[in-house]
Amino acid sequence: MLTLPGLIDPHVHMREPGATHKEDWASGTAAALAGGFTLVLAMPNTHPPVVDARSLAAAQAAAMAGARCDFGLYLGGTVDNVKQAAGLAGRTAGLKLYLDQTYGPLRLDELTAIAAHLAHWPPARPIVAHAEGRSLAMVMALAHLHRRRLHVAHLSRADEIALVRLAKQRGWRVTCEVTPHHLFLCEEDLPALGPGRGEVRPRLASRADQQALWKNLEVIDCFASDHAPHTLAEKDGPTPPPGFPGLETALGLLLGAVHERRLTRTMLVERMASNPRRIFGLRAQPQTSLEVDERARWEVRAAEMHSRCAWSPFEGYPVRGRVTRVVLRGHEVVRDGEVRAAPGYGRNVFG
Amino acid sequence: MLTLPGLIDPHVHMREPGATHKEDWASGTAAALAGGFTLVLAMPNTHPPVVDARSLAAAQAAAMAGARCDFGLYLGGTVDNVKQAAGLAGRTAGLKLYLDQTYGPLRLDELTAIAAHLAHWPPARPIVAHAEGRSLAMVMALAHLHRRRLHVAHLSRADEIALVRLAKQRGWRVTCEVTPHHLFLCEEDLPALGPGRGEVRPRLASRADQQALWKNLEVIDCFASDHAPHTLAEKDGPTPPPGFPGLETALGLLLGAVHERRLTRTMLVERMASNPRRIFGLRAQPQTSLEVDERARWEVRAAEMHSRCAWSPFEGYPVRGRVTRVVLRGHEVVRDGEVRAAPGYGRNVFG
Repeated sequence: MLTLPGLIDPHVHMREPGATHKEDWASGTAAALAGGFTLVLAMPNTHPPVVDARSLAAAQAAAMAGARCDFGLYLGGTVDNVKQAAGLAGRTAGLKLYLDQTYGPLRLDELTAIAAHLAHWPPARPIVAHAEGRSLAMVMALAHLHRRRLHVAHLSRADEIALVRLAKQRGWRVTCEVTPHHLFLCEEDLPALGPGRGEVRPRLASRADQQALWKNLEVIDCFASDHAPHTLAEKDGPTPPPGFPGLETALGLLLGAVHERRLTRTMLVERMASNPRRIFGLRAQPQTSLEVDERARWEVRAAEMHSRCAWSPFEGYPVRGRVTRVVLRGHEVVRDGEVRAAPGYGRNVFG
Repeated sequence: MLTLPGLIDPHVHMREPGATHKEDWASGTAAALAGGFTLVLAMPNTHPPVVDARSLAAAQAAAMAGARCDFGLYLGGTVDNVKQAAGLAGRTAGLKLYLDQTYGPLRLDELTAIAAHLAHWPPARPIVAHAEGRSLAMVMALAHLHRRRLHVAHLSRADEIALVRLAKQRGWRVTCEVTPHHLFLCEEDLPALGPGRGEVRPRLASRADQQALWKNLEVIDCFASDHAPHTLAEKDGPTPPPGFPGLETALGLLLGAVHERRLTRTMLVERMASNPRRIFGLRAQPQTSLEVDERARWEVRAAEMHSRCAWSPFEGYPVRGRVTRVVLRGHEVVRDGEVRAAPGYGRNVFG
């Protein structure tokens, strides 16, 4: 048995409030615990989005009632919530800026508004950006000029990782995360996935982009699932929304890479526990750990998962390592692979 | 009589080769001399565009045959000329990167190509970017990370000048130019101009943007006309191309501002002569100066101008200061307001 610290996923979508047919806090955090995550940071593009004191309070209430693992909530930046957002910073996991097209109503287009958020957000608190390609260089400039730390969400391309590498060499305070699906899938997998199920933002990239991520693992601070559940009816429908579930496949995929010596176990723990804890200023969860049967080999079966969305882009994919037991704050929340924590056991780490 | 150094316009479009019905080197540099400019740097978005050794040689030949004043030529960056452009750097005024929509075929969209140009272009040579809003922050990040100087073309908005101001405070090697039309016109002038004649990139901005430029004159390194002639038939036609002529109105407009004490004469000379000379590494033009009747008041009349395009967005606008005499390298090239230099008198300052 391998013992690991509780894993932290800094990028999940719990879909509550507003789209609980896809996921809610109870189902999404069951998936988290089953996947070895004891703390998740949830994105604000719910319905309504989390952008002010009222919507933050509503999202917190839903999370406190439903969450089986610990959590934090991001606040979304909009054109008109600059000062309000800054005032709420201490109660959130960070500020999320959507700077490119994705799922949900939050998107900032104008330089003026983006710069205003970077100028006003408290420097000690994290800022996370969905920023692809040119947008990534743009927000990096603004963050650096305004002396803010920047965490780059789901970096996916060779040019992006080259840019973050260079900025780190120059001493810029930038960190980044990469998703398992951008590490293990590329656009060559799209025909097998099908057009709707393959929709994700950032899009699955080229084989060369995928290889560039593996070649630059030392530049990658975190692995983040970007768990973004939608139902199969939606994914196979006429306007498929972008997003993959990922909480229950991340660890198995990455332990597979450890087995194949593409990654060391130490690197995995840094990117799934210690680095996100440091970057997001998360207090240690006492008496929290997981046990993993590292030798277990299995194939991804969405039917066995806890996420309400009931599908996976990795269906049938061979992975390694079974989470058999999870202890969260002294309580056994997963036992023999079964999630035992009740909704409401999770705590708001920024409450 | 006021004596000034020969003015330098770092941003003109001479339309030759490819669109000599709008302007050519002979007509465009007659306009330059009439406006007090003894040196112009010409943009590469001709037909064909100036992007390689062959097109540069053709453009140089056209300019040497037609130019009445001295000149330099920019080279345009494309997705596939990164190394070739860098190899031609010493024969050009600089690298021009089109990072937003404008007139002509040159536009770079992908981060990969933009970053490659900034990584390969010789650090000592200028890079000029058409980059508005978000694109401006993007290219500033890339230039700074790759340790390149960046000159920002026709900056026009409050958020952009705030960004350049901050970057200068932080020690970034960035300079910028502003056009007379963004200083003297704004979107409130569009109804009077009409939809076609009002088309220009960057667009005429808001009154607040216009005021921000005047409030930040110390951040502005150069005044550049962005002389971009199109015929009235084109401007009033079904698909009006963006662009204003400007060489023959720039000095009069700015001397008007000097008269109104919105600007000092020293600031004008810095921005129209000494700063562009320093930024673009231009050798002094010996025995070169102009005489201006500073007290002369006149109204802009396109019919009296030398530019082939035969219209002005400033028609009827009251301005100050008549260029009565221009001496370029010891020869009187304008006398009693009449252009006397022949086509071919102008020299390629990077030849």
